[in-house]
Amino acid sequence: MDRIPVLKIGDILLVSIQVDMDDHTALGLQDDLTERIVETHAHGVIIDITALDIVDSFIGRMLSTIASVSRVLDAETVVVGMRPAVAITLVELGLSLTGVRTALNVERGMELLARTAPPRASSIADADDTDDTETDDPALTR
Amino acid sequence: MDRIPVLKIGDILLVSIQVDMDDHTALGLQDDLTERIVETHAHGVIIDITALDIVDSFIGRMLSTIASVSRVLDAETVVVGMRPAVAITLVELGLSLTGVRTALNVERGMELLARTAPPRASSIADADDTDDTETDDPALTR
Repeated sequence: MDRIPVLKIGDILLVSIQVDMDDHTALGLQDDLTERIVETHAHGVIIDITALDIVDSFIGRMLSTIASVSRVLDAETVVVGMRPAVAITLVELGLSLTGVRTALNVERGMELLARTAPPRASSIADADDTDDTETDDPALTR
Repeated sequence: MDRIPVLKIGDILLVSIQVDMDDHTALGLQDDLTERIVETHAHGVIIDITALDIVDSFIGRMLSTIASVSRVLDAETVVVGMRPAVAITLVELGLSLTGVRTALNVERGMELLARTAPPRASSIADADDTDDTETDDPALTR
């Protein structure tokens, strides 16, 4: 059980961190995630940290690195399920999760990713309706 | 980290098993799942076992129990992400996952659950839309 599973749901990759992270696990997760992003053309990564009692600077840095690498590969990262105590500790420690967006839970994270999804190459090529989120605009639909 | 997180996605609960299961963890997971099923009115449970190298009779029994309890609560259980070696061992050991459906991965599991979903009370009697979460139901918005 040395690898953290990366689950694919639509064009989102979901990772649930449940084990204590060490260098090896963190690097393995980063490798797996980048490979899966490229392989699946995922546009978003959701990292669930419900199980974590503590987010220290090591995990914080890992999350930031994953977010940065994912962004280069055109995938947004959202960290979800942070416990209240973890959030308080993060702020008290002065740790900022650079480049990492957060949401309350997986569903909110998915909504966030759906809203911020960039127009995909395929839909640009299709026609001019580049963005799903803009179809609600009356000016466009009329 | 003594609890395995139960993630809610739509009306499906997702559990990714990554830690070695003992009696305590198994009972905890079962309790959490049953509580969440009742609380969220979930109609399906997906258990991802990608991370498991071995499914022995203990884990097999746990999965069967979860499936049975969930079914009583009107939720179908699908086990996904089983490794080829695990599948072979299961058959060789003569372990049958009684009452447990399986699918290749989370997406297939979700498709399976969507196909087998019984008509929900909400869509049968869409007049009494008592629950906020049900307003997304296409049957209601159309």
